[in-house]
Amino acid sequence: MKNFVYAIPTKIYFGEGQVNKLDRILAPLGSRVLLVYGGGSIKKNGIYDAVVDILKENDIFYEEMGGVEPNPRIETVRRGAALCREKGIEVVLPIGGGSTIDCAKVVAAAACYDGDAWDLVKDARRIRKALPVVSILTLSATGSEMDTFAVISNMETKEKIGTGSPLLRPAASILDPSYTESVSAYQTAAGTADIMSHIMEAYFSNIEGYLQDRMAEGLLKTCIEFGVKAIQNPDDYEARANLMWASSWAINDFLALGKPVAWSVHPMEHELSAFYDITHGVGLAILTPHWMRYVLSEKTAEKFKALGVNAWGVDSSLTAMEAAAQTIERTAEYFQRMGLPARLAEVGIGEENFDVMAQKAAAQTRSSYVPLTAEDVKAIYQMAK
Amino acid sequence: MKNFVYAIPTKIYFGEGQVNKLDRILAPLGSRVLLVYGGGSIKKNGIYDAVVDILKENDIFYEEMGGVEPNPRIETVRRGAALCREKGIEVVLPIGGGSTIDCAKVVAAAACYDGDAWDLVKDARRIRKALPVVSILTLSATGSEMDTFAVISNMETKEKIGTGSPLLRPAASILDPSYTESVSAYQTAAGTADIMSHIMEAYFSNIEGYLQDRMAEGLLKTCIEFGVKAIQNPDDYEARANLMWASSWAINDFLALGKPVAWSVHPMEHELSAFYDITHGVGLAILTPHWMRYVLSEKTAEKFKALGVNAWGVDSSLTAMEAAAQTIERTAEYFQRMGLPARLAEVGIGEENFDVMAQKAAAQTRSSYVPLTAEDVKAIYQMAK
Repeated sequence: MKNFVYAIPTKIYFGEGQVNKLDRILAPLGSRVLLVYGGGSIKKNGIYDAVVDILKENDIFYEEMGGVEPNPRIETVRRGAALCREKGIEVVLPIGGGSTIDCAKVVAAAACYDGDAWDLVKDARRIRKALPVVSILTLSATGSEMDTFAVISNMETKEKIGTGSPLLRPAASILDPSYTESVSAYQTAAGTADIMSHIMEAYFSNIEGYLQDRMAEGLLKTCIEFGVKAIQNPDDYEARANLMWASSWAINDFLALGKPVAWSVHPMEHELSAFYDITHGVGLAILTPHWMRYVLSEKTAEKFKALGVNAWGVDSSLTAMEAAAQTIERTAEYFQRMGLPARLAEVGIGEENFDVMAQKAAAQTRSSYVPLTAEDVKAIYQMAK
Repeated sequence: MKNFVYAIPTKIYFGEGQVNKLDRILAPLGSRVLLVYGGGSIKKNGIYDAVVDILKENDIFYEEMGGVEPNPRIETVRRGAALCREKGIEVVLPIGGGSTIDCAKVVAAAACYDGDAWDLVKDARRIRKALPVVSILTLSATGSEMDTFAVISNMETKEKIGTGSPLLRPAASILDPSYTESVSAYQTAAGTADIMSHIMEAYFSNIEGYLQDRMAEGLLKTCIEFGVKAIQNPDDYEARANLMWASSWAINDFLALGKPVAWSVHPMEHELSAFYDITHGVGLAILTPHWMRYVLSEKTAEKFKALGVNAWGVDSSLTAMEAAAQTIERTAEYFQRMGLPARLAEVGIGEENFDVMAQKAAAQTRSSYVPLTAEDVKAIYQMAK
């Protein structure tokens, strides 16, 4: 285990009706709020009204910014930062999934930054100050509600880049699992695939972390137990609650501290989303099994076997290679059982950009669990086409 | 899963040599420090010198209070609180195991309280303010380095009482696993039994928490993997590191949030320590298997089976009762394999106080996983005698 510093001060208000504490959560942080949301589904399901009622009752000033894109764009961040400065905003309050929260985080930093917001995405070290963020989560997926990261897209330059800073970690997040009961089967599946990918990106490290790996397996089991259940029974509160809590823990640092490694599948997927604007979790579900097959070797088989035996119930008496192969097939099957596509062609992605996407992704996969060159990444895209 | 609020702001500086960051950790908290420690082993192993050097180099004023007892006493707390007031202390800095840290936490609260320190132990609601605590851990056991609790003894009244408040959670803790390499086999075993007991106290709840239970099993597996290893190879850094990180997570709230329950074995053990001043983890190791046998029934068997299958590798094809019985035997065997006693007689405890101890413990076990009356508790003491 490597040395690390653990610091996760985000307060989580978990459970049905926790939004009623919003006034008390905001009180120590500020009284001028920027409400950030996406396509407006929160206006149909009552969450918007509940929040606005609380803000009004408590004389909390609020400005609104709706229309955050599924892959949030830098123009939207700029718009939010300008609003913050213009209206003297003290707290940024996203209501939504990871896209909305990611956007709000970079808005919070850009509001305190003199230059252009895209600087903060390109170079995280420029984030020196940020307004506090309080998030209200409506989709279990990215873990943005408890982590330091935000991914922003620049469609002009076809770049989708992750930035991160402890200053971006929300001060508090409200996790009400009942909010996710109206999430579609497809988005539930994509979100669960995203959570599972975060767990596995942390799992596949060359540095030993026994405790961390057992925690990762426990979280993965939680996704396996409840992903399909939540799709089959959208109102299953226990399923929604377990997936929601798993989303936060998959990527809040806990699994990776002491055993850091550069991620493999996320950088490859970010290129797909940047070029084709597809749902992040769908891209991950397509690529993950192919990445696994590509990096499976005598050297990596034991790690795949451990994951399979401990999380998927693979027979421990199999050889490492046999067990590893089963682990990979179970993963692929599970994504399909949730109704997710297995091929890039199914989401309209052809070979036309494989070279350029592979070049870009390889900048980040060179120091992964199994180091991947642009040629390796292209080969994985080919397997997934 | 029940509603909960998660808030664990303690920063953890984990790994070899992290003490070198002490000046930076203290900087935002204060520059007048009370060093708190126990019997003085830290003066033999170099930790005391390392800390004092850093304090001197950085012109940080410090006062010392040594001699904290293994079951820390209220008189010591009073002495520390008086020192804090007299010397204008701003930060309490315990170096040691759970006893020293527990003592320091109540000192930190008592320094800000006008009445007698024992009030704060008897009634946690009286804790309204506390100095920040920065702990340097030298024994993996109680989890005091990241939790809200402190247990203080009053030998006059033969009371050993736990108090707790979010204000007692350390602001930061330094966890250097190499500090525990000099811990004796017996204390390593007792500490590991304490961690295992915390995990199991949280596990056995009647409220569902799938994710929490899988996390608990992962932590328990970590103890099973490394407890005996650390005893056999005291210098095994990976073993020491995993046990240390497990000690913090076993009781920092994570496992119990969403599925709270009154504890069973701890209240029974606290009476043993209060009457006989035995090592806490030893008492837990003696009582736990007997408590398990006593509460095992058709109703509880599935929960014991889940723990056995998922953490101890018990055969999942066994009936619930068969698997549960194996779970219990594996637990008892493991404690013995670590060299811990299995009977109260082995630590000099006879039947003379069973009645009064059972009466006192039952005040807290009435709402446990399986509710226990004074008669039940006495029966468990009888089984363990």
